Amino acid sequence: MRRRSVLLATLLAATALPGLAQTPAAAPAAAPASIPAKVDPFVARLRDTALKDDMAYDLVEGLTTEVGQRLAATEAEARARSWAVAKLRAMGFRNVRVETFQMPAWVRGEETAEIVSPFAQKLVLTALGNSGATPPEGLTAPVVVFPTYNDLLAAPDGSLTSKIVYIGHAMAPSQDGSSYGAYGAARRAGPAAAARKGAVAVVIRSIGTSDNRLPHTGGTSFPAGVTPIPAAALSNPDADQLERIAARGRPVTMRLVLTPRFLGQAESGNVIAEVPGTDPGAGVVLIGGHLDSWDLGTGAIDDAAGVAITAVAAKRIMDSGRRPRRTIRVVWFGAEEVGVFGGRAYAERHPERHALTAESDFGADRIWRFETNLPAGANAVGDRLQAALAPLGIPRGAGVAGDGADVGPIMARGTAAIDLNQSGIRYFDTHHTPNDTIDRIDPEQLRQNVAAWTAMLAVVAYAPEDIGPVTPAK
Amino acid sequence: MRRRSVLLATLLAATALPGLAQTPAAAPAAAPASIPAKVDPFVARLRDTALKDDMAYDLVEGLTTEVGQRLAATEAEARARSWAVAKLRAMGFRNVRVETFQMPAWVRGEETAEIVSPFAQKLVLTALGNSGATPPEGLTAPVVVFPTYNDLLAAPDGSLTSKIVYIGHAMAPSQDGSSYGAYGAARRAGPAAAARKGAVAVVIRSIGTSDNRLPHTGGTSFPAGVTPIPAAALSNPDADQLERIAARGRPVTMRLVLTPRFLGQAESGNVIAEVPGTDPGAGVVLIGGHLDSWDLGTGAIDDAAGVAITAVAAKRIMDSGRRPRRTIRVVWFGAEEVGVFGGRAYAERHPERHALTAESDFGADRIWRFETNLPAGANAVGDRLQAALAPLGIPRGAGVAGDGADVGPIMARGTAAIDLNQSGIRYFDTHHTPNDTIDRIDPEQLRQNVAAWTAMLAVVAYAPEDIGPVTPAK
Repeated sequence: MRRRSVLLATLLAATALPGLAQTPAAAPAAAPASIPAKVDPFVARLRDTALKDDMAYDLVEGLTTEVGQRLAATEAEARARSWAVAKLRAMGFRNVRVETFQMPAWVRGEETAEIVSPFAQKLVLTALGNSGATPPEGLTAPVVVFPTYNDLLAAPDGSLTSKIVYIGHAMAPSQDGSSYGAYGAARRAGPAAAARKGAVAVVIRSIGTSDNRLPHTGGTSFPAGVTPIPAAALSNPDADQLERIAARGRPVTMRLVLTPRFLGQAESGNVIAEVPGTDPGAGVVLIGGHLDSWDLGTGAIDDAAGVAITAVAAKRIMDSGRRPRRTIRVVWFGAEEVGVFGGRAYAERHPERHALTAESDFGADRIWRFETNLPAGANAVGDRLQAALAPLGIPRGAGVAGDGADVGPIMARGTAAIDLNQSGIRYFDTHHTPNDTIDRIDPEQLRQNVAAWTAMLAVVAYAPEDIGPVTPAK
Repeated sequence: MRRRSVLLATLLAATALPGLAQTPAAAPAAAPASIPAKVDPFVARLRDTALKDDMAYDLVEGLTTEVGQRLAATEAEARARSWAVAKLRAMGFRNVRVETFQMPAWVRGEETAEIVSPFAQKLVLTALGNSGATPPEGLTAPVVVFPTYNDLLAAPDGSLTSKIVYIGHAMAPSQDGSSYGAYGAARRAGPAAAARKGAVAVVIRSIGTSDNRLPHTGGTSFPAGVTPIPAAALSNPDADQLERIAARGRPVTMRLVLTPRFLGQAESGNVIAEVPGTDPGAGVVLIGGHLDSWDLGTGAIDDAAGVAITAVAAKRIMDSGRRPRRTIRVVWFGAEEVGVFGGRAYAERHPERHALTAESDFGADRIWRFETNLPAGANAVGDRLQAALAPLGIPRGAGVAGDGADVGPIMARGTAAIDLNQSGIRYFDTHHTPNDTIDRIDPEQLRQNVAAWTAMLAVVAYAPEDIGPVTPAK
């Protein structure tokens, strides 16, 4: 059940012809800026051989099979760290280690929902991270339907006392993932907003695009002073069903059983591996993804793919025969999903100079665009990167790089950044659902990712230019 | 999230041009047998106006929204009968009634599975109908993997004592559904075979083609003398995962909690509605589908679609202005899924002459073929049907009609039959899974079904020929 991309195969056949990118002598002297052609043969060779890579797929297969889900601060995430250390050492990395930290642990319990009236039937949902719990025997209350998050915000204070709030707010796919950010407020802030107005529980439409009866989890947060209430997401077909039932105009009563638990402080950790550079003063190139996952699937696209892509790209540099100028540090962050605990812990522990950072945490579909946030002195680095990525079908975007929750605290210090943007068109069909499993990974698209990351490292880690501080994108 | 078929729209645009089928005068005098052109204008008009039908979709929407799942012999199925009686009366049918019967009731309980070792993780599964139960706290045992049902049959007696048996046996889609029959043995008979060899539980790969983590339920049976053991189906991705884990070569231990229950005898029933004919001696035309459903989805394609298609086609005859020669009896059978109790109860209670029978129980995708089992004296009826269906893109198949579990006992008496075969290519992506919901119905393809059934009734119910007994197809 691997999904293969005919489109990508066609694209690569058309653009990544062996030798084409490796013959700068044949390129016109003044190629238009939109079609850069001059690529260091070392970079081109590393990029093109990476297009045949199988190791990233094998890493994803191994982690998702031999560990499975890896919810933050659980025993499963600890097993994932042990698996990761053994694997990264076997790959030949140096300074492989775990940096642990403490964080509040939340675990899922029972989760069932049913319409009690007017039309008795079960609905499929899943608790949001940090959800409060119903009594063990459940909670039954009338449902108030809000088509959008803003409709909820407009409800008078106190008007939702003893009610279960439903928030619609359906999102659509977008290649750059922006719709997730825009519509995600219903999940991130909706439960707290409803709690403030007196609601006893919140049920949202999944902030995801799957049309299967597989709900989409994800974190919500309750600010200090707001007691967590039970909060869960219905699958899209179940949200449709609730809306159809409500549209009949009769009062809707729902029964919820949600028994997640907060377990107090527990251990998580970041797994770190390095390719040592020749110039300690040139700053670290920090790359990675997150090792933890939500607990519904096996975290294949989110984010076994990201940790695999970045580690394999670093290994290709390590095995290239030319030691990089800058140390490449691969970090497989812990506890990203539940609140970016690993990213913050890393930044606190690593005051040393970082030259540049980049994170892979948007699945495994093809990279369609890249963006940078480089200081003016390193403009040539961006130009060389543009030339190196063009044969992979990756143009340069007009925006400023700033993606990656885990590397956010390092970027916030003014560290330069590169985004290699994966296509988000089908990402939210799978993301945070039980369907996040290995069969959603397209091996061909995954290889294109590895090639792009390898090319990026081959440009950045060896760049003779100084890569100094920048103004963060956000 | 309705799925629209561009293919069908194109097909209809190309073949069902208004007037084309209604102008027999323009047809060549000796049209080739493969392109019949002469269609009674009454039949053609009914057929073509049915292509604009919305009532079937509305019935599916109503039943799946206002009742939802309708597991046999449960309170939900009883609500469905009440809903059905009210709806069929409102549609104008005569002799609307329920014929109840008693049957053994089985209901789902808890269902969880986890690999205990070598790689601890949860798997998604669902109990098969008639499954036995584990203790409430579950059952833990080593897993023995059989790639196919035949591999299980080849295992020595007693070799599976205290083991959990896994059966692979992956099916592929087929337009005529034959792969379901062929591979279904693993579900229908695998658990009993494993029980006879000493197994304590059985876990099969879903006999379905969904690549989602939504398992496929369905009935299994334990013959007299074989005590039911817990029996469940993993979703296809979970079956892949178990096979990947087992392929590592280390012993696999699984824990299962399955607590379905047999509730003893309970009531189910068939809902019956009629369009009275003018000639009581001409025999009843029996059509329908089944009102019950599995409990995971809302039974939209299985079989709200079938009851809706057949009832709406009959209503179109009723409203045509010409009373049919033969009484059309629409039966919405109870308790098909769990053992065809409704079909048998109907046959026992209805010794009267049936001229012809047909059932719709293969979803709502387009009818791609029809087949008949007609006596020689009624060959002309089949020829007229062929002419009437051709503009809908429906050719005549080479086989002998015999589909429809509920009407099986009536066919077994030697009653003539017509199969209007729906495409099964995507049927088993949805069938018996939680995804069997209204959004899987393509309104355009559903309309083509209604048109075909209307045309069939317009030919058969008015046919002046005697439609006498036949040799059943199977």
